[in-house]
Amino acid sequence: MIARLVKLAPRDADPLAGPGDDCAVIDLGPAFDDLLLFKTDAMVAGVHFLPGTPAEAVGWKAVARVVSDFAAMGGKPKHFLVTLAVAAETSLDWVESLYRGIGRCLKFHDSMLAGGETSRVPPGSAAVISISATGSVTRGHLALRSTAKPGDILLVTGTLGGSLRSGKHLDFYPRIKEANWLVSIFKPTAMMDVSDGLAKDLPRLAAASGCGFLLDRNMLPVTKGCDVNQALNDGEDFELLLAMSPIHVPVLLEKWQSVFPDLPLTVIGRMVEDGQGETLSGGWDHFAGIR
Amino acid sequence: MIARLVKLAPRDADPLAGPGDDCAVIDLGPAFDDLLLFKTDAMVAGVHFLPGTPAEAVGWKAVARVVSDFAAMGGKPKHFLVTLAVAAETSLDWVESLYRGIGRCLKFHDSMLAGGETSRVPPGSAAVISISATGSVTRGHLALRSTAKPGDILLVTGTLGGSLRSGKHLDFYPRIKEANWLVSIFKPTAMMDVSDGLAKDLPRLAAASGCGFLLDRNMLPVTKGCDVNQALNDGEDFELLLAMSPIHVPVLLEKWQSVFPDLPLTVIGRMVEDGQGETLSGGWDHFAGIR
Repeated sequence: MIARLVKLAPRDADPLAGPGDDCAVIDLGPAFDDLLLFKTDAMVAGVHFLPGTPAEAVGWKAVARVVSDFAAMGGKPKHFLVTLAVAAETSLDWVESLYRGIGRCLKFHDSMLAGGETSRVPPGSAAVISISATGSVTRGHLALRSTAKPGDILLVTGTLGGSLRSGKHLDFYPRIKEANWLVSIFKPTAMMDVSDGLAKDLPRLAAASGCGFLLDRNMLPVTKGCDVNQALNDGEDFELLLAMSPIHVPVLLEKWQSVFPDLPLTVIGRMVEDGQGETLSGGWDHFAGIR
Repeated sequence: MIARLVKLAPRDADPLAGPGDDCAVIDLGPAFDDLLLFKTDAMVAGVHFLPGTPAEAVGWKAVARVVSDFAAMGGKPKHFLVTLAVAAETSLDWVESLYRGIGRCLKFHDSMLAGGETSRVPPGSAAVISISATGSVTRGHLALRSTAKPGDILLVTGTLGGSLRSGKHLDFYPRIKEANWLVSIFKPTAMMDVSDGLAKDLPRLAAASGCGFLLDRNMLPVTKGCDVNQALNDGEDFELLLAMSPIHVPVLLEKWQSVFPDLPLTVIGRMVEDGQGETLSGGWDHFAGIR
């Protein structure tokens, strides 16, 4: 559906800038050393968080999800705009707690609020929190999801599965430090964040790169108490999925362990030629019901 | 309320970048000739458009509102992100028509779709369309709403009032050409777009500038068929409100008429010292009901 929709609007001739990756990439010209990154992400009450979720956790998550997308590109966010659409009966306490969580997550990531908007929705309608951010990435550090090559090794940070049950989805720390280290030392051939479950996101990376993939299910870093099925489908892991040339992998794994001793980095498979490999479906669908 | 909320989040030390103006302004450093502009704006079904409104008109308006904010700063938008949150029962036809309107307005303004997101809202919840855009303004052309001075003459483009009744609010053309001409020839001391009605927006410009104002109601360019009350309060005019040093006004009015013969530019009052002048209230309240 999204592919049909974006055809209805003019797009940049520069393929870096179009829809389809974790952030839009804007080249402001050679005078500006970095590339500009631009991202928007929405959370809807009853879809992305439950009515009973503490508002401060909702605020933290709304920002952290966006930070995770900047991490996936090898960059950093800086300026945020917050659009809040809530029913008139929403208490000011709730809104203030939400902003407290937003502020805490911005501060943690050396980012700032540059503006935004507050509007109402009709009585009974779900609250929507839409966060937009700009930031930057060093030109040579830009990591896309469309540039993996057959033969690349697939790796994932952390463990997968159980994020919703454990509450990790509300108070996670985006892998920005790790991603920034990776792109400056062992730049992945492709990278994205795993937000909708590996079963949904790995096929996306493969399709964007015009490759197939082979996943070694026995190697998956499954969260304690979860099974492989949950690791593939639960979603909201906010870990990094990366493809890396095989020649770099042994040294990467060794260095990683000394720099990030508390966070696993695990080989989970490899990229193969398009049309080969396996298929995978499942994961979290933002829009299952549309006709 | 917004003032209370933004205190809960870190802000830029650079006062250009903070909340409160039509767009956020980001200085990317002296290597980048222009300043970056960044804006987000949401439209909610049942609040900013009625269920029966043609989706293509909703799409046009959603983009045009944002373009109007870039005009108000003396700049131009370029890259847009579209976040669409609609119920699963929404027809794909409606969504496609919406995108057709978005695409048409982007194309008209030499802008492009750089990405976005589509999500669902729970059944029965109002659709929310949130548009974010980045663009730029030549450093010397930046117009703020906070820099008017006592003695400045107040002017407004077009006519005010009746926008909702006439349908202008759905198919208006943002005053971007006019604003870009103004800042390059006779830069206003302050400028903003009139979106919530002059009765709400003029006091905002005055408060941001630390000034008072005197409005000459007899001079107001009232839309045919409307009265002064409607001109002040209806909102959704999307005209430019500007403050200009009195020495420039006679030549400005003369040149304006030769460049934009079909669009009135009208003197409506002047800025005075803070604490003097008059008070004005009314206009459109995005959030009348919050406790």
